[in-house]
Amino acid sequence: MYPDILANVARHITLTPDEEAYFTALLVPQHVPRYGFVLQAGQRAPYLTFVVQGCVRTYATDARGKEHILAFATEGWWCMDSTAFFHGTPATLSLQALEPTQVLHLSLEHMEALCQQVPKFERFFRILSQNGFQHLQRRIEALLKLTAEVRFARFQHQHPRLHQRVAQKHIAAYLGVTPEFLSMLRKKNS
Amino acid sequence: MYPDILANVARHITLTPDEEAYFTALLVPQHVPRYGFVLQAGQRAPYLTFVVQGCVRTYATDARGKEHILAFATEGWWCMDSTAFFHGTPATLSLQALEPTQVLHLSLEHMEALCQQVPKFERFFRILSQNGFQHLQRRIEALLKLTAEVRFARFQHQHPRLHQRVAQKHIAAYLGVTPEFLSMLRKKNS
Repeated sequence: MYPDILANVARHITLTPDEEAYFTALLVPQHVPRYGFVLQAGQRAPYLTFVVQGCVRTYATDARGKEHILAFATEGWWCMDSTAFFHGTPATLSLQALEPTQVLHLSLEHMEALCQQVPKFERFFRILSQNGFQHLQRRIEALLKLTAEVRFARFQHQHPRLHQRVAQKHIAAYLGVTPEFLSMLRKKNS
Repeated sequence: MYPDILANVARHITLTPDEEAYFTALLVPQHVPRYGFVLQAGQRAPYLTFVVQGCVRTYATDARGKEHILAFATEGWWCMDSTAFFHGTPATLSLQALEPTQVLHLSLEHMEALCQQVPKFERFFRILSQNGFQHLQRRIEALLKLTAEVRFARFQHQHPRLHQRVAQKHIAAYLGVTPEFLSMLRKKNS
């Protein structure tokens, strides 16, 4: 269960065996079936979530019921509704497993305890947040300035395997195009 | 020059006078005239930038030369092209002062030195990055799921003073609407 998350942490900080044991004891494992929810909009969202196995989509639903995908998280990625997590407010985003998915949750209380008890985790979560910030800044830039065709090409380049795992309607909802337009783009690029 | 940035840091960590002196000695002040650039796309972007006074817009230019504003930063806000800052690659975003603006820059090298020398800065930059992540996640969610009318109402609520300081064309470029459409929204809401 824990080697992947420990390897993820070890990319940025070095833990002693005792610190590893303390950290992993704080994690809450959850198995989510395909199309099950890690989090549903309207619920409290007490966890920062690491994907051990599977795939989670983070999405928002508009007033007309249309879903817009902000991000996909596969093995080794973290996901969350950040405002709900940090402020304890009801989630406005939903996190749904697109495959049978194994996750590990960390609560805000335990995240803060971890940073107090093992201060090098301040560094880990700083770098994790910085990387997340970069990822979102590039995502907004792409949404605002790139054409759907360029965004699709970039998506294929950035996530070559995801492309084969996820239903086309979800890729369309991530790119902000209709499934029909995505189908046209795929034919054009094949 | 430094009271505002020290107050910003003091929201999350407590520095000794020596630590304050060490920190402020790493900062590079810059006065940017109205419409001058803090950073231009294509340049290296070696700084994380704190706005002491004035207003900076962070924007991307698309292939047709149209500008899209990702964010505004006024007094007490930080701004950056994060990928360019952390990876040393040329910026793809531009940061332009919309008023005579006073900023303080911190280089990546000095940010890392600061975290090494004064480890509580790990905590500060963790919280800063987390807040930035939240801000961008809400911004993407709004772009994807809210109508321009709701985004405009939210912008007025979130940034009541900015609305009076910034040209309408820039607010339109932030909301992703034409200036004409923004003018219509303003009349409807007045």
